[in-house]
Amino acid sequence: MNDRKNSSLSGSSQHIEYRPGFLRLLDQTRLPAEAAFIEARTWQEVAEAIVHLRVRGAPAIGIAGAYGLALHAHHMVENGASRAAFASGLPAGADGLIASRPTAVNLSWAVNRLLDHAQAQLAVNTPLPEIAASLDRLAQEIHADDIAACHSIGRYGAALFDSRVRILTHCNTGDLATGGYGTALGIIRSLWQGGKLTGVYVDETRPLLQGSRLTAWELQRDGIPYTLIADNMAASFMQRRAIDAVIVGADRIAHNGDTANKIGTYGLAVLTRAHGIPFIVAAPRSTLDASIATGDHIVIEQRNPAEVTSFAGVASAPDGANASNPAFDITPASFISWIVTEAGVLGPPFEAAIGRLSAEQPTRVAP
Amino acid sequence: MNDRKNSSLSGSSQHIEYRPGFLRLLDQTRLPAEAAFIEARTWQEVAEAIVHLRVRGAPAIGIAGAYGLALHAHHMVENGASRAAFASGLPAGADGLIASRPTAVNLSWAVNRLLDHAQAQLAVNTPLPEIAASLDRLAQEIHADDIAACHSIGRYGAALFDSRVRILTHCNTGDLATGGYGTALGIIRSLWQGGKLTGVYVDETRPLLQGSRLTAWELQRDGIPYTLIADNMAASFMQRRAIDAVIVGADRIAHNGDTANKIGTYGLAVLTRAHGIPFIVAAPRSTLDASIATGDHIVIEQRNPAEVTSFAGVASAPDGANASNPAFDITPASFISWIVTEAGVLGPPFEAAIGRLSAEQPTRVAP
Repeated sequence: MNDRKNSSLSGSSQHIEYRPGFLRLLDQTRLPAEAAFIEARTWQEVAEAIVHLRVRGAPAIGIAGAYGLALHAHHMVENGASRAAFASGLPAGADGLIASRPTAVNLSWAVNRLLDHAQAQLAVNTPLPEIAASLDRLAQEIHADDIAACHSIGRYGAALFDSRVRILTHCNTGDLATGGYGTALGIIRSLWQGGKLTGVYVDETRPLLQGSRLTAWELQRDGIPYTLIADNMAASFMQRRAIDAVIVGADRIAHNGDTANKIGTYGLAVLTRAHGIPFIVAAPRSTLDASIATGDHIVIEQRNPAEVTSFAGVASAPDGANASNPAFDITPASFISWIVTEAGVLGPPFEAAIGRLSAEQPTRVAP
Repeated sequence: MNDRKNSSLSGSSQHIEYRPGFLRLLDQTRLPAEAAFIEARTWQEVAEAIVHLRVRGAPAIGIAGAYGLALHAHHMVENGASRAAFASGLPAGADGLIASRPTAVNLSWAVNRLLDHAQAQLAVNTPLPEIAASLDRLAQEIHADDIAACHSIGRYGAALFDSRVRILTHCNTGDLATGGYGTALGIIRSLWQGGKLTGVYVDETRPLLQGSRLTAWELQRDGIPYTLIADNMAASFMQRRAIDAVIVGADRIAHNGDTANKIGTYGLAVLTRAHGIPFIVAAPRSTLDASIATGDHIVIEQRNPAEVTSFAGVASAPDGANASNPAFDITPASFISWIVTEAGVLGPPFEAAIGRLSAEQPTRVAP
């Protein structure tokens, strides 16, 4: 890898850079081979980046979605949109952004926060350029809040452990998946900084290999010792007592604590139960969705089967192979030891705490 | 794929073809892209093919190993070896073949059967060309017996099910892994032929993707409906009640029933227990090893970590990534519902039956 390119990314959050009317995103599909950036000036370009996982991770797509709606406001102002066109164009862009990925709630949460704000400003006749500028500030605030939330999650999560531990994690929940620092990987970073981490087992996370491409890349960059394994090896390392806890992120957490996360998470939860190992979910409050009672109501995104029949762009199955590619699974709350948020650690039963912590979320105002 | 090449493989067992002094093997590392063959005239060439998984699957490497020792006998005879050189060269070749992969017991079982036979013939002064010819016949008998055993395993295993079922399998246990027809895949073929199979979930089986490259290829060729999934998706399909049983092969089964098989097998066994699904091991008697009490005594082959950090030569992790690559894991007998052999179906506790069925195995005569 190119060191200069790497060093430019060693601070948190530089993979998402915004200035009014212009968004620059690290193209995560090209990691670890190269650190290449894409530029977006329209909501459609942001939605394309989300659909194709150039930016991914529930908190990160929330941030990108918020910037996408802010871009949209600027774009309409620059093109001389009328107030009526702006008022109808903004929710249309919001809907397009939200539809780009269905499972993570952070995306609709962030986009709807901006839309609510804009609609309130429209109602009191604020000039359109001022509304666009206020959307910039709100998106930047969501971004900054997410970084702060990750640091809090890291501290709260690390405090769960007294001694040096070996952690297994799945997918990527680090800098790249958030505004910066990470959720599950934020806890791992805090453990490392506190001298309480022996090492990390990193699931490669098929089919898109966010573990081997992204988590290994972040840990290697930060000098945190890790061992990359195929997803199907986790059970064997648990059997050998090589793993003290599993920590994962989340894309949506229902009122009762049922958690949608990257496919493979549920299997790990079952394995932790069988081996007497804690299973910890790390997520900001924006991932809590008390509007749905249980995980049964979470839509699971089905992605292109070609992601399963190929590996890093090389065909790995016969032509015409039939494959299935659910991108997420649901881990029932009964398998979860703790949910770590920026407001503290939640233990089971989760319902009351989730209801309280997600109560402040904005609700979409009907246009 | 090339249809003509495929059709030449549609009968069982044509992936291993032997005539005295000459072995032709389908190079499984090049599937499904192409059906290419390699030719071997020395035991070293056979050992190389086993080390590099050009031929793989516990029963198949037993057959290849037997042919490898027969090749060695011919090679020595053709090169005018003395009786003394033949008598010392044969066990040296046997040791080299057995060392090519440590976990599957079928390899040492088959090679030692030939070696025992040759040593008995040497003791009664049989001419070397006759010994070589008798090794050909014994290797061909091992090959034919394995095909017959697979058909019996298929029949016994299919009889365990009364109604149409959906089976999940891991790795490749089909034609390619055996003399022909397959073990776990033999049961699946028998279920299909008996109208009792709805479909097959095929784990891709990282890191070397024997499921997507080989099992999907065999099932597609035979017109058996299947769905390829990433290894980490199995739990989610079990949670959705889409899987009625898991059937896998084995590389070595200890006296108590503890089973070594492809990495990922143990995790599937834990998942079946959690979901109340039968977990079935299919293997010929040559896989039973009553000489070891439990799975604790089975050597687990550690393969090159580069298999985990790449696929088909394409890197999937950062340069210098640290990875681990155990090729097998051990499933404790307590997770196994049935072990299906050509002698019938064994239920727990397995010890007495395994002791009885593996009692006829040859023991290596000290040179």
